[in-house]
Amino acid sequence: MSLAHEVKLSAAVSASPPAEDSDLPPALVPRFEHQGYQAQAVAARRNWVEVKTGCGLHNVARYSIPSEEMRGNLENPIGAAQVPLGVAGPLLIHGEHAKGIFYVPLATTEGALVRSYERGMVTLTRAGGVTTRVYGDENRVCPVFLFPGVAEAHEFAMRLNDHFSTIKAEAESTTHYGKLLRLECHPVGREVVVNFCYFTADAHGMNMIVKATERACGWILSHTGAQDFLIFSGLSSEKRASGALFAGGKGKAIVAGARISAALLHSYLHITPAQLLDLWQHTVLGHIQAHAAGYNGHFANGLAALFIACGQDVANIVNSAVGITNFERCNNDEVYVSVTLPSLTVATVGGGTGLGTGRECLEMLGVAGAGRALKLAEIAAGMLLAGEISMAAAIASGEFAQAHDRYGRNRPGTFNGSHNGS
Amino acid sequence: MSLAHEVKLSAAVSASPPAEDSDLPPALVPRFEHQGYQAQAVAARRNWVEVKTGCGLHNVARYSIPSEEMRGNLENPIGAAQVPLGVAGPLLIHGEHAKGIFYVPLATTEGALVRSYERGMVTLTRAGGVTTRVYGDENRVCPVFLFPGVAEAHEFAMRLNDHFSTIKAEAESTTHYGKLLRLECHPVGREVVVNFCYFTADAHGMNMIVKATERACGWILSHTGAQDFLIFSGLSSEKRASGALFAGGKGKAIVAGARISAALLHSYLHITPAQLLDLWQHTVLGHIQAHAAGYNGHFANGLAALFIACGQDVANIVNSAVGITNFERCNNDEVYVSVTLPSLTVATVGGGTGLGTGRECLEMLGVAGAGRALKLAEIAAGMLLAGEISMAAAIASGEFAQAHDRYGRNRPGTFNGSHNGS
Amino acid sequence: MSLAHEVKLSAAVSASPPAEDSDLPPALVPRFEHQGYQAQAVAARRNWVEVKTGCGLHNVARYSIPSEEMRGNLENPIGAAQVPLGVAGPLLIHGEHAKGIFYVPLATTEGALVRSYERGMVTLTRAGGVTTRVYGDENRVCPVFLFPGVAEAHEFAMRLNDHFSTIKAEAESTTHYGKLLRLECHPVGREVVVNFCYFTADAHGMNMIVKATERACGWILSHTGAQDFLIFSGLSSEKRASGALFAGGKGKAIVAGARISAALLHSYLHITPAQLLDLWQHTVLGHIQAHAAGYNGHFANGLAALFIACGQDVANIVNSAVGITNFERCNNDEVYVSVTLPSLTVATVGGGTGLGTGRECLEMLGVAGAGRALKLAEIAAGMLLAGEISMAAAIASGEFAQAHDRYGRNRPGTFNGSHNGS
Amino acid sequence: MSLAHEVKLSAAVSASPPAEDSDLPPALVPRFEHQGYQAQAVAARRNWVEVKTGCGLHNVARYSIPSEEMRGNLENPIGAAQVPLGVAGPLLIHGEHAKGIFYVPLATTEGALVRSYERGMVTLTRAGGVTTRVYGDENRVCPVFLFPGVAEAHEFAMRLNDHFSTIKAEAESTTHYGKLLRLECHPVGREVVVNFCYFTADAHGMNMIVKATERACGWILSHTGAQDFLIFSGLSSEKRASGALFAGGKGKAIVAGARISAALLHSYLHITPAQLLDLWQHTVLGHIQAHAAGYNGHFANGLAALFIACGQDVANIVNSAVGITNFERCNNDEVYVSVTLPSLTVATVGGGTGLGTGRECLEMLGVAGAGRALKLAEIAAGMLLAGEISMAAAIASGEFAQAHDRYGRNRPGTFNGSHNGS
Repeated sequence: MSLAHEVKLSAAVSASPPAEDSDLPPALVPRFEHQGYQAQAVAARRNWVEVKTGCGLHNVARYSIPSEEMRGNLENPIGAAQVPLGVAGPLLIHGEHAKGIFYVPLATTEGALVRSYERGMVTLTRAGGVTTRVYGDENRVCPVFLFPGVAEAHEFAMRLNDHFSTIKAEAESTTHYGKLLRLECHPVGREVVVNFCYFTADAHGMNMIVKATERACGWILSHTGAQDFLIFSGLSSEKRASGALFAGGKGKAIVAGARISAALLHSYLHITPAQLLDLWQHTVLGHIQAHAAGYNGHFANGLAALFIACGQDVANIVNSAVGITNFERCNNDEVYVSVTLPSLTVATVGGGTGLGTGRECLEMLGVAGAGRALKLAEIAAGMLLAGEISMAAAIASGEFAQAHDRYGRNRPGTFNGSHNGS
Repeated sequence: MSLAHEVKLSAAVSASPPAEDSDLPPALVPRFEHQGYQAQAVAARRNWVEVKTGCGLHNVARYSIPSEEMRGNLENPIGAAQVPLGVAGPLLIHGEHAKGIFYVPLATTEGALVRSYERGMVTLTRAGGVTTRVYGDENRVCPVFLFPGVAEAHEFAMRLNDHFSTIKAEAESTTHYGKLLRLECHPVGREVVVNFCYFTADAHGMNMIVKATERACGWILSHTGAQDFLIFSGLSSEKRASGALFAGGKGKAIVAGARISAALLHSYLHITPAQLLDLWQHTVLGHIQAHAAGYNGHFANGLAALFIACGQDVANIVNSAVGITNFERCNNDEVYVSVTLPSLTVATVGGGTGLGTGRECLEMLGVAGAGRALKLAEIAAGMLLAGEISMAAAIASGEFAQAHDRYGRNRPGTFNGSHNGS
Repeated sequence: MSLAHEVKLSAAVSASPPAEDSDLPPALVPRFEHQGYQAQAVAARRNWVEVKTGCGLHNVARYSIPSEEMRGNLENPIGAAQVPLGVAGPLLIHGEHAKGIFYVPLATTEGALVRSYERGMVTLTRAGGVTTRVYGDENRVCPVFLFPGVAEAHEFAMRLNDHFSTIKAEAESTTHYGKLLRLECHPVGREVVVNFCYFTADAHGMNMIVKATERACGWILSHTGAQDFLIFSGLSSEKRASGALFAGGKGKAIVAGARISAALLHSYLHITPAQLLDLWQHTVLGHIQAHAAGYNGHFANGLAALFIACGQDVANIVNSAVGITNFERCNNDEVYVSVTLPSLTVATVGGGTGLGTGRECLEMLGVAGAGRALKLAEIAAGMLLAGEISMAAAIASGEFAQAHDRYGRNRPGTFNGSHNGS
Repeated sequence: MSLAHEVKLSAAVSASPPAEDSDLPPALVPRFEHQGYQAQAVAARRNWVEVKTGCGLHNVARYSIPSEEMRGNLENPIGAAQVPLGVAGPLLIHGEHAKGIFYVPLATTEGALVRSYERGMVTLTRAGGVTTRVYGDENRVCPVFLFPGVAEAHEFAMRLNDHFSTIKAEAESTTHYGKLLRLECHPVGREVVVNFCYFTADAHGMNMIVKATERACGWILSHTGAQDFLIFSGLSSEKRASGALFAGGKGKAIVAGARISAALLHSYLHITPAQLLDLWQHTVLGHIQAHAAGYNGHFANGLAALFIACGQDVANIVNSAVGITNFERCNNDEVYVSVTLPSLTVATVGGGTGLGTGRECLEMLGVAGAGRALKLAEIAAGMLLAGEISMAAAIASGEFAQAHDRYGRNRPGTFNGSHNGS
């Protein structure tokens, strides 16, 4: 490796790959000095991988984010993954934080997705726009405390809030941004799960509040009958789908709604109100039979595309996609369409929000930096509503497969092509 | 726009943005000729967005995938999103399809994630490797058929399989790859949901099997008492989390397991077997209280990072992350660790698997192209197991927050910095 | 105790209560000779309880079931609990097994319940009756088998069905009635849950099929790589609510449906079709937010009342109540109403079906004895549909509280009475 | 009907059954004067049923509850159902409300159930007793309010609590016992579900709080922007199983726990601590795969038997049975066993608690009448814990089938008998 003389290797690891048939243990990934974030170290590590695996990482090498900026977001960097990025709009939003027309960046490789969201956005915009409202904005860590028996656990739970101000001070001593709002105790036998509920401003803030909670738990261990604790109990459903998310407290709780006339449904989406309502009812039943967490058409699609574009923590689409889409009849041949998102996790500071394309896509929406997380949440909700009505209409009208024929990989004419399998 | 004379605009849309205060409807996104996939059209559209929204999309412009190759994967292209890409390994796998040492590409902006997975991989490799086995490999579309009453619906369901060979022929007439395996009827009142269960080779194949199913449904409408159908009923849980996924049929069903000695747990993960087992029990209870779909530590993290890297359909992490992690005691101070994934959606052809960095990351794992989807599934399962033991150990040992301090954004010294909010 | 000289005490226990403040361990309940099923032993035990607890069990003593017949259904008998029994009807059913008019026995202490079900039954009957159809009739035991690792578990699962005929013979050697239909393997890490799926004729048959399965598991342990097994894995959801019940296999899967005109809705239920449909949609959303297992108004009420009346195993209402109620619009101002019950557990032989009032209530429906379990299932489904439309109408019309005022405990005039708390 | 001259028939209905083949509509059930609660009317109605259905209701006629006392609990009375009643104990409880030794009445027809609970109770008592603690004691009604759009709904939710004292006064004007504790708003699109959270003293109190809530909703309709409401939204999970029950608010939230030595496990339950813990882990996984609501062995069995005995509303076992059983290792070869019941619905006044055997069974436990509901809750929790350890031990030790052979219907020697089907 030609860069070996320039980049000092970490003492603990070896960058020289052993021969496959040697008795040596398999080689560790090279770390290099200071964890190897310099461009040269990144290149050296990428080259090491190429040699080791026999592949060529030419596109991976074509990243534009300064590699040193990846520190804190990624270890063992070798470059960047590229995901095709499109734009959908216009989307007119009447929120408390987002007001006006938006053009939304979406990163995806699913053909027809951008076109489908765009169709929904145009329909909503022509209908007068989407109204959005935020109901909650919190995040939480839910450690579990251990006791000798149910009596001791109960006594702890009954008295914990007597110490709230002290616990709050302990927790907040580790952060300038996180605010501890309240403590909620949930017993399970002789254990007590305590929900530490925080306001985290414009960051998702998991690292922030885990650290704060750990500090507070240390105080609790010293001053109560708790024998031990685990910083996570699983109750918070961070990056998991669960029914408990509907009760709120993990991310932004937000709704978006719009009224659409039969005429617009007909001209833009090729369906009648009755068709849309029937589709809703039939597919709700499918979700109930599947014991799905929530009911919606494809929140995950829009969230994944937006999150990748905007430097969000993509794994959070799992909790964020738990929500409800509703279509209801109104007087005079209108329908009211809405989405309800009890656990939308979006941020405009921290994580990948400051890096390269993520930062640019946030700027494209006017939501980069502090004070804008709720605006981003409102845009996300409006976008999802657009995707829901468009997909529902495609199914109800029988046009779903045709749309994917036209825009997706199995277009007529490519039937025998290499991409037929999409 | 300087490129306007070179790129013919689509008749239906206007690329010239109206002034914000005009009475004109909000401008549509420019489509350009042939949907605008030429590099110039992409640049023109991106410039249009920059003007329209006042942002600068310099990094977005730095894509290396030929823009014409995005056709079928994306509409309204403006470039690509970049996600920092690292590598974790070595991971020794003993599967039926994946055999040997792997170095796994992970695209993420969550600090400490790659390091954590790497730690788990090294531990598993030192322990002798991960064994993986595939239990199922299917995909499905679940249309719902409508009838006048429960009697007619019942008669339909009792007789549908009499026509199986004909229905299979109809469905398969639209595809070279998809194979209809069987039909399963589930009544709900006077409707019948029919699971069309397919083998789709190395593609995820949703477009393929939706098209095939739609053809088959047409035949069914003409030859049975069904009055109508909707191509989706919601029962399949595509890109959704549900309990029904545990019954299989949506993607790959796969397990990965390994035996780890107390000595290795101590030296690599800093915990004892008892600590690991206690952690498991306590956090299972949290998941049950949350009514989560499945039990695992953070499947979503590893899946998101792998899926972005490897050109997978990222929204599929929602169904793929429904699964079970298990840690069990063995004789002689060992633990047996495993993951069970009933609905892992991975592909090596179709979708974004042939594009730029996605293709390269698949090659890095030796799984690009036909015949390799199950190998990719086995690698994914092994990787997730690594992530589970590492995260569990970090929680059980009390090192979780410290690890995120060291590698993540809220490192000591950056407390007052701009990234504190991560 | 005056009967002590007539009834020989079991050697292991004492019928003479120790003084509360003695150092003796608390007294065991007297068992008497042959477990004490003679009327005298029952009286002696009851008297012992009266002395021990200071209560008078005069009504408990007024049972009419010969006490010796309780053997096999109950231990430590002291008499019988009485639950008020009413009748609701007429209910016209067009099933494959139940045909004609039925008057349904319901045992409950919830005021207004019988009247509400009666109202629904009359409405359905006037509308031309309820059509019912059975989709499935099985029961299952789901033991879990243990293996050293995932490879051995996988091999087991892949080959188990090679031995199906032998395993079937083993299982069926213990019973004249249970028939093993098939084996289904579900892995979880290095374990394999095997669904033993049976037909159990007119009995619920849990004891029968547990015994059969245990025999079969013995054979499997001796002839495969399985190291051990547990007879229950929890997967079958016997007497538990779960999403998996929708896939069938635990009890009768059955639907009931009817078409009701707007005129009948108006005259009998005081609502319009639109009101009924709106009620449905709004309350479905509540169930989804609660992450309920299924959607229905109050299956549990009707099932509890019928099960107590008819000598069923009442704990089975937990799985039986998981199901779906649907109201749909039809042409010409009609609604189609239906219930779908994937896991209805009813029996006409075995358990308490032959005892006293249970036997009589089964006879009242013409379903006592062999060959009639599906008829009972159809009646149960029809009855539940009646209860669903009646309750839904009461809510939609705003009459719910009034109905409970008129028939329930908080009637005007009893406001200050002792039963106000109902 | 010989009594027809003595009992005046209700004008609206006819007691004379039409011939089956007539063109007359099917006969309604006779109501008689004042709804027919006199003993003669009950007999006449029962006779009418006997004639109508051709059955003999001799045991049904053998009720001892004065029929007039059934008013408010039952309509169309014809007698009572009898369920065999046994007793299990001694059960030593150390609660805040229940203290001392209890002998528990259980009404069931499931052979071996009483013996199994008894075995668990004796074990717990020998181990020093069960400790119980109550965490919550509430009940709720959750109406849904309707609005033109999401903006109006949001405004309502943000301001509703400004009116709390007025709404509380309205609600409580209808009841002496129910106390409105707080209001919680949950949006779904343009609707808002409002949890009306009450304390209902010793009654379950659904009728009470439905009436109170309806009054309050009337006020809300007149004084806010709400356009309409439905008294039930489905969110409360009354008599339904759901994940939301774990958050509390529907009934008593209670835990029971005990420490058991290895020696006691061995001598009374024939298992080791390791066997018990392994059983727990394996069956938890089955519940997770089934997507069950909670985890426990057979709460439904004990609850059904206790509820029938004690005049409880039996349909409430569906929500009450959602809970968690936990077995944990302790130092020195002990296990800690516990049950957690987030939604236990028990009452000591109202409903069937004052009727005949129900009243007597409550007295047997020392919990009849006001001020004793929490004591009953603690006894119920202790009893369920006994049932859990006994059943778990039977499974873990492989004795389950044998126990049912000995005590249940499929005893050796009755193999060919008429009850084999149990």
